[in-house]
Amino acid sequence: MANSKYEYVKSFELSDALLPHTWIVIRIDGKGFTRFSQAHGFTKPNDEQALRLMNEGARAVFEDLPDVCFGYGVSDEYSFVLKKNSKLYQRRASKLVSIIVSLFSATYVMKWGQYFPGKEIQYAPSFDGRAVCYPSDAILRDYLSWRQVDCHINNQYNTCYWNLVQSGSSPTEAQSLIKGTLADFKNELLHSRFGINYNELPPIFRKGSLIFRRKEETVVKVEDGVPVKRLKSQVVVTHEDLIKDRFWKENPSILGTAGSKKSAS
Amino acid sequence: MANSKYEYVKSFELSDALLPHTWIVIRIDGKGFTRFSQAHGFTKPNDEQALRLMNEGARAVFEDLPDVCFGYGVSDEYSFVLKKNSKLYQRRASKLVSIIVSLFSATYVMKWGQYFPGKEIQYAPSFDGRAVCYPSDAILRDYLSWRQVDCHINNQYNTCYWNLVQSGSSPTEAQSLIKGTLADFKNELLHSRFGINYNELPPIFRKGSLIFRRKEETVVKVEDGVPVKRLKSQVVVTHEDLIKDRFWKENPSILGTAGSKKSAS
Amino acid sequence: MANSKYEYVKSFELSDALLPHTWIVIRIDGKGFTRFSQAHGFTKPNDEQALRLMNEGARAVFEDLPDVCFGYGVSDEYSFVLKKNSKLYQRRASKLVSIIVSLFSATYVMKWGQYFPGKEIQYAPSFDGRAVCYPSDAILRDYLSWRQVDCHINNQYNTCYWNLVQSGSSPTEAQSLIKGTLADFKNELLHSRFGINYNELPPIFRKGSLIFRRKEETVVKVEDGVPVKRLKSQVVVTHEDLIKDRFWKENPSILGTAGSKKSAS
Amino acid sequence: MANSKYEYVKSFELSDALLPHTWIVIRIDGKGFTRFSQAHGFTKPNDEQALRLMNEGARAVFEDLPDVCFGYGVSDEYSFVLKKNSKLYQRRASKLVSIIVSLFSATYVMKWGQYFPGKEIQYAPSFDGRAVCYPSDAILRDYLSWRQVDCHINNQYNTCYWNLVQSGSSPTEAQSLIKGTLADFKNELLHSRFGINYNELPPIFRKGSLIFRRKEETVVKVEDGVPVKRLKSQVVVTHEDLIKDRFWKENPSILGTAGSKKSAS
Repeated sequence: MANSKYEYVKSFELSDALLPHTWIVIRIDGKGFTRFSQAHGFTKPNDEQALRLMNEGARAVFEDLPDVCFGYGVSDEYSFVLKKNSKLYQRRASKLVSIIVSLFSATYVMKWGQYFPGKEIQYAPSFDGRAVCYPSDAILRDYLSWRQVDCHINNQYNTCYWNLVQSGSSPTEAQSLIKGTLADFKNELLHSRFGINYNELPPIFRKGSLIFRRKEETVVKVEDGVPVKRLKSQVVVTHEDLIKDRFWKENPSILGTAGSKKSAS
Repeated sequence: MANSKYEYVKSFELSDALLPHTWIVIRIDGKGFTRFSQAHGFTKPNDEQALRLMNEGARAVFEDLPDVCFGYGVSDEYSFVLKKNSKLYQRRASKLVSIIVSLFSATYVMKWGQYFPGKEIQYAPSFDGRAVCYPSDAILRDYLSWRQVDCHINNQYNTCYWNLVQSGSSPTEAQSLIKGTLADFKNELLHSRFGINYNELPPIFRKGSLIFRRKEETVVKVEDGVPVKRLKSQVVVTHEDLIKDRFWKENPSILGTAGSKKSAS
Repeated sequence: MANSKYEYVKSFELSDALLPHTWIVIRIDGKGFTRFSQAHGFTKPNDEQALRLMNEGARAVFEDLPDVCFGYGVSDEYSFVLKKNSKLYQRRASKLVSIIVSLFSATYVMKWGQYFPGKEIQYAPSFDGRAVCYPSDAILRDYLSWRQVDCHINNQYNTCYWNLVQSGSSPTEAQSLIKGTLADFKNELLHSRFGINYNELPPIFRKGSLIFRRKEETVVKVEDGVPVKRLKSQVVVTHEDLIKDRFWKENPSILGTAGSKKSAS
Repeated sequence: MANSKYEYVKSFELSDALLPHTWIVIRIDGKGFTRFSQAHGFTKPNDEQALRLMNEGARAVFEDLPDVCFGYGVSDEYSFVLKKNSKLYQRRASKLVSIIVSLFSATYVMKWGQYFPGKEIQYAPSFDGRAVCYPSDAILRDYLSWRQVDCHINNQYNTCYWNLVQSGSSPTEAQSLIKGTLADFKNELLHSRFGINYNELPPIFRKGSLIFRRKEETVVKVEDGVPVKRLKSQVVVTHEDLIKDRFWKENPSILGTAGSKKSAS
């Protein structure tokens, strides 16, 4: 075959398979989204439509890749968790990262019009991605907690900052007033100066977005005018605490797929 | 800082830096494009608009990443070459792969309407990606030659196949007639049965697409009605042979950026 | 500094750090030991002195590297387990593999004379090594069970084979008689033809060697003629079953060092 | 087969193959050799016997592994270069590092008595190892130059330091006198205070040791009292400059071995 002379170049492709039986997290992150959000006039400190568009990208990933069992989104970042025992693409890091980031990016552009009707997208956004393995359920939960704590800290800071700036402070004044202060100070500031009760802000801002599959009663057909319901697995997006045990106890199937000793064998 | 308790999870991110001073090739490849091309009624064996849309994606990569010095596209696949001495993202494989595949995918969707006016995109396409290092200019050229030979072989086969099928053969008949035959046989078949001179088919089908920067005389302003030209670096797309030396001799700057011994030090 | 011109070459050293919080197993394996055992007249099917010399190499590894918490040896092979949370040499694979294999090899030669007095070592033996990560206790135990089952299967086969050959069978005859037979057949063969009760063979042959630290009552000094004992951590070598739970229950400290959720955080 | 239940653990072994068609350098380095050299009374600043013993270890590597084409030793460190196109052990890093470091260490102990007759080795020495790829001849030469410049700088410093200390200076005095000084100052110091002409010190101290294969006229037999000579490949150790072109021009086969038909080279 004419091509065989050159086919030796394939031998330069080295394996980047990830360790079996560990949780694979693919985290993607908007590249240059400060500029992107300004160019498109995103509301500050949070643009709900932009966040819901991110969730739409995540939903596309869930629909395409059944091995993705959990996702967590905050700001222009999303983390996707693959099942511990997933063998998708032989666990090759670049395959997994690229498929997810590609699908997410394409969906983001496709669905733009639904979330920003009448506002044209100025230029193509892009996301970077990376793959990280977590060897135990406890460490995976610590990873997710890390992201949710980050969401909280950043949101609290940004809420103070933008309220100050929008009410007349210069960026430097706003910064110097809140930098290094404790949570209580910021909550008090929001309350006394802007009448904002931080804990009553929309959960999507304070908690970020959780996406996962949940068995829900769904109308599958209507027989003689009577809706017939079945328990069906649905992709749902919620905005709740994932640091405490409650969420994981209420949704045991998320981490439960590879739990027992037997499944190791 | 409240988040420090969880920050240890960052230590699970392992380095995936690629060997310095080697040509990095990022190859991206449409996922499930047989289905995608059917769903969107792409012309067979080649859809020129679809190929030009791929080139648009490549152009976005060139505009965003100056370290990308060459690209080669065929069918639903594109290879991007980074300069040998590039330090972009510390040469981290997943960063490079994800940024390129993300930008390409987002641009593909954004520009869809320009290439398929009036035809709505049905669902988000996706591409996978991988990074491979090639240690010498000669091996890099062998890699690119491999892709262009592949383009030729596949195109010749597909041109025969689709002409047969479109003129009444069943897929099985078409396949069994041409499978394993030599180039001459296929050329003769195209000529005698369909009056097609293979070598006169559009170069974009036979040679694929080369994308690179070239210094070209460009009108930079008009003074007193006289256009003022300057040599400016332009991103150009051509459809020519890259296997023989000629192309590389005519465009020495593509591989020339890291050539001498000194630049190694 | 005169050397700075060349120091850029250090940048070609890529990271090979192993995933944190996983059990690292370094397995070393004699290279060409069929020839080595023949050249030195090792007893067949098992040379007890050669096995004890292997254990001496393992002991040196234990004395030098406190993070090694368990070892298992069979034939010319040894597996060393590093604590899950070890940070030794930043968990760099080549560092860990090389230090262990180097120390083992040097010790093997140094102690040769003690185990083979009067028999000169003919040439330097060598061992290869590799590092593998196991993400959970259960999988680590499966790994070790794998090696012990292998020890059993090989030993049973070899015991039959060498008794047949030593009693007059040709190698081919011996092989064809036992190849593919079940354990019971081999036990029966040993019993009926050679009067050997397999289960009464020395445990070091049937079970291999386990090496680990155990708190033992040790005489630390003698006061007024009375020996004073303390619980001290000793490196011990045993030859027992490690597949069933018993061994791990009796020695909980081996795997216990990184058990709780807290130590993950 | 009884063992199949556990054999899944093999899937945790990830590939660590090194990039094809690059020079692989395996560098090994004595672990804790300051203590080892004190424990064995090595002469300061250089112990010629200890250096020759290192060369003996290197010779064993050359005899065992034909793909090793060059070696360079200085102090307790040795670098081994594998041919660019070597496929030894499928270029797996841990295999290559471990085999070389193991053989070197075992040989070091075996040959100890020849170089230190009457002096017993106190404890097993050990070496660590790492593998690095260099993509071009020029960069490989820069790597080797880096090591030889290091040899020179360290040797000049140490020669001053130890002559000062051996003639009555305290370590602190010696250090503060020479630290940060230029080569000329050190040469002048050696000459004026100790009558030492640095350039007349033994080349093995100033240049380190080069080991490679060279075709040499060798007596292969004696016929009728007449020695019959043939050109035979011999492993030789020299102590010469490898930074300038001369050495490489005189020994073109060392780097020339990968220049086959492949347009790749």
